[in-house]
Amino acid sequence: MTNRGPDAGSSPRTVAQDAVLALLLEVTGTPKPGNVDRHHDHDDLRFEHFLAGAVGAEPAFRDVPEAPLGATFRRAVEGMSYQQGGNTQFGAILTVLPLAYAAHAGDLSPAGASAVVEATTVDDAVDFYRAFDAVDVAVDDPPEGMADLDVRQGGDAEQVLRERGLTLADVMARSADVDGVAAEWVDGFPRVFEAAEAILADDGPVPDRAARAFLGLLATELDTFVVKTHDRETAVSVRERARAARDGETDPVALSDELVAEGVNPGTTADLTAGALFVALRRGVAV
Amino acid sequence: MTNRGPDAGSSPRTVAQDAVLALLLEVTGTPKPGNVDRHHDHDDLRFEHFLAGAVGAEPAFRDVPEAPLGATFRRAVEGMSYQQGGNTQFGAILTVLPLAYAAHAGDLSPAGASAVVEATTVDDAVDFYRAFDAVDVAVDDPPEGMADLDVRQGGDAEQVLRERGLTLADVMARSADVDGVAAEWVDGFPRVFEAAEAILADDGPVPDRAARAFLGLLATELDTFVVKTHDRETAVSVRERARAARDGETDPVALSDELVAEGVNPGTTADLTAGALFVALRRGVAV
Repeated sequence: MTNRGPDAGSSPRTVAQDAVLALLLEVTGTPKPGNVDRHHDHDDLRFEHFLAGAVGAEPAFRDVPEAPLGATFRRAVEGMSYQQGGNTQFGAILTVLPLAYAAHAGDLSPAGASAVVEATTVDDAVDFYRAFDAVDVAVDDPPEGMADLDVRQGGDAEQVLRERGLTLADVMARSADVDGVAAEWVDGFPRVFEAAEAILADDGPVPDRAARAFLGLLATELDTFVVKTHDRETAVSVRERARAARDGETDPVALSDELVAEGVNPGTTADLTAGALFVALRRGVAV
Repeated sequence: MTNRGPDAGSSPRTVAQDAVLALLLEVTGTPKPGNVDRHHDHDDLRFEHFLAGAVGAEPAFRDVPEAPLGATFRRAVEGMSYQQGGNTQFGAILTVLPLAYAAHAGDLSPAGASAVVEATTVDDAVDFYRAFDAVDVAVDDPPEGMADLDVRQGGDAEQVLRERGLTLADVMARSADVDGVAAEWVDGFPRVFEAAEAILADDGPVPDRAARAFLGLLATELDTFVVKTHDRETAVSVRERARAARDGETDPVALSDELVAEGVNPGTTADLTAGALFVALRRGVAV
């Protein structure tokens, strides 16, 4: 096996392979309340769309670390979008990708991930915006005073980004209050690394561990994707119900069926779970 | 997207990506009576082992068409084996791989696949035998007079293969009577192409189509993996029960639960289904 990456603990796979496998294991773990998983589909977003999304993103992951992060992200999202489900793994790729760069640099840690984030450029920011042209991502209206940075304009934001000299790290910092993935980017991925350690310390099949890690994440913070697609009140309710399920007061499988029926999809928590799986795979969790 | 291959109908993916996606869709389709699928695990062979197997095989598929088929097969099997479930997709890779070479040659048809088979060499046969060193594959005792070609000796068969000048096509021809994948190799993959057309003509989610194609294959011929791991009588019974399920006389889901409980795993039929999915993907079935 070539190019396994300098960080490879006991993973027999390359960084790109572990990135793809993390995406596949994430969607497999069940119950992951409200999300597509091995036992749950949404009406127009099905399990196989995530399989095709992961396979589509794969060539871009192989461009790590030579290609710039923004270009790699855009290509991964474009590849992901070759399926009929729409946005399957935009946030998951955004979570895993800087970790893949950190892994290649031999420092898959909060400090290593922060170094990757801090090294991002204005070009990376431009490519990040361009990625929104490839797929319909659920986003809120931008915060006050940031209308000219609305991600929904896609590549048309290039001029503003260049004029203001904003790197991808700068863009993420501006969204950290309202986006759980951006918050991880800014803070050295604390929840991702914590969930990875939970997966490593856990027992049993890896998808089961991922489902438990997901529930733990959902029980402790508001899912910002639920805030965006529903509202804050719904996200608070989901967190409390997840807490009850995590603590054994209610059945996680029942909660999963309920949230799917309610159309509530804690997508940000799934994104962080994908990141945690990637870290756990690099640190040697055996599938 | 580069290197999509000259045959690409409406597939937006490379040949290697479609090969991996075919393996993933195959294990996802449910119910596939007796096999691991999205809703069924065996005790020591679980869904996630197939995910890791497909991801592990991926780099080898990218060596098509430059590398010789035998070496590519051996590397795919070695990569597949980096998981704890044992043999997940040996037969599926053996089915898909010549079709991947045919796709790259621009002729993904029975004639194109036969041309690939006929072009195999003694070196390909040696690497095929070496692949058995990587993973524990269920095989019967060799037919009378073929003890010196027992695949269980792995790479130790090299001398005999070279002395007798046997190509991989020759090896397959000697097993065609007792192995459903070898029979496809010899005859231009008739059942694979027929099942691919059934998938293309069918409606609904692709994994559901794959499950129906699987049942159709299982209902029409004896599964040689069931013959090897159980006996001919069991395989005849499975075929008849599959026929009843296909014809709506019994419930395919119930049959699936029964066969899993009985430890009967029609693996050869799953291998052919993977091949059919690969052909259907190249011919433009949309996921």
